[in-house]
Amino acid sequence: MLPEVLLFDVFGTVVDWRGSVAREVKQAAETRGAALDPFAFADAWRSLYQPSMEEVRSGRRGWTILDDLHRESLDKLLAQFGVAELFDEPARRDLNKAWRRLDPWPEVGPALSRLKQRYFIAPCSNGNIALIARMARRAALPWDAILGAEPARAYKPQPEAYLRSATMADAPPEACMMVAAHNEDLEAAAAAGLQTAFVLRATEHGPGQSKDLAPTGAWTINARDFDDLADQLNA
Amino acid sequence: MLPEVLLFDVFGTVVDWRGSVAREVKQAAETRGAALDPFAFADAWRSLYQPSMEEVRSGRRGWTILDDLHRESLDKLLAQFGVAELFDEPARRDLNKAWRRLDPWPEVGPALSRLKQRYFIAPCSNGNIALIARMARRAALPWDAILGAEPARAYKPQPEAYLRSATMADAPPEACMMVAAHNEDLEAAAAAGLQTAFVLRATEHGPGQSKDLAPTGAWTINARDFDDLADQLNA
Repeated sequence: MLPEVLLFDVFGTVVDWRGSVAREVKQAAETRGAALDPFAFADAWRSLYQPSMEEVRSGRRGWTILDDLHRESLDKLLAQFGVAELFDEPARRDLNKAWRRLDPWPEVGPALSRLKQRYFIAPCSNGNIALIARMARRAALPWDAILGAEPARAYKPQPEAYLRSATMADAPPEACMMVAAHNEDLEAAAAAGLQTAFVLRATEHGPGQSKDLAPTGAWTINARDFDDLADQLNA
Repeated sequence: MLPEVLLFDVFGTVVDWRGSVAREVKQAAETRGAALDPFAFADAWRSLYQPSMEEVRSGRRGWTILDDLHRESLDKLLAQFGVAELFDEPARRDLNKAWRRLDPWPEVGPALSRLKQRYFIAPCSNGNIALIARMARRAALPWDAILGAEPARAYKPQPEAYLRSATMADAPPEACMMVAAHNEDLEAAAAAGLQTAFVLRATEHGPGQSKDLAPTGAWTINARDFDDLADQLNA
């Protein structure tokens, strides 16, 4: 049975966070005469992503949006990379918004417009609404609504992140399909009763990527990219 | 100072709820051989809107989305109009979705597209996300995100509805402008620290409309319609 609602992971699935964050870090570093490897910095920033959310998921910390978690990670990393004194408050605030300036993978925009003709499309990301909506403005992503962690008040892979997103879209879980380039995201979505679509993003983590190079579960759909996904969903 | 974020009331301000609900009621009534005045029914349905939300605002009732409040009001009214037996469960479910099939006032679509070029635009409505997002799909309203009562978990005119919408848009209240055809909505938004824009909708309640025919407060902007609003906001 075809789904009614498509829920999309964003970082890695819709946008190339690594290449885009590295571009933003490189630019900010050059402006301030900071010597650092932009890709190493992007990878280090992303490596603090799961631990920072785990504080919230575990209940050790109250609800905190991703913009704020990213900012705390940024402050740590600037110190760790030995460039803290080169980034004042406005510079940090701007660099933190790098996550709003991520480029989509090339086929995403047109494919989402195709999919939107037939399906209700919404991100189900751990990014907060302002982050994901500002990204959508810049990249012209035609979401019907911004669902996911902030309105659900739960970080993936907690089941509430998927289930409350389905409820907010007014669809039962089985009428929703989670689209992601990450097998773990799809495992959690499937466990919550959603349909699943794996989309291959073989260079999300750069040329040496070692995970998510193939589907590891019996997902509803396995797609090469969003065009292939739209084809398989008869969009 | 020009705002960064425009928050829009929806029912009456963006869409003609009365004409559209009456159209939907007329069609449903004719299909089922129910004799009733569609405009009287639409007005009666809307008259239960504030009392139903007041149960939630007062804390007498837990958080309940507008789709569910509308449905309860519909069930009451079908009985009151003496046509309850003509509407089975699927018919009621479909008629309740009349609120997702509201037509925008004529200039709204193009004017919102203009405004979106320069501003972050989002509804701040008491309608839930699925209702407002489905309406936006049908009417091609290019919202950047669906804010308002459901993600804020508060019904206007409670200050939290405005303040949490501003926070979700990552803007301080004074950088947000509430746009509404209702002076009471603007009073509450102004009290919460937002800028305000009154838009005249002189026939929202039909030819005999007696309220909101003029601004009653010192609003930031008074506009004849959304085109005039876009002009005044240099969009």
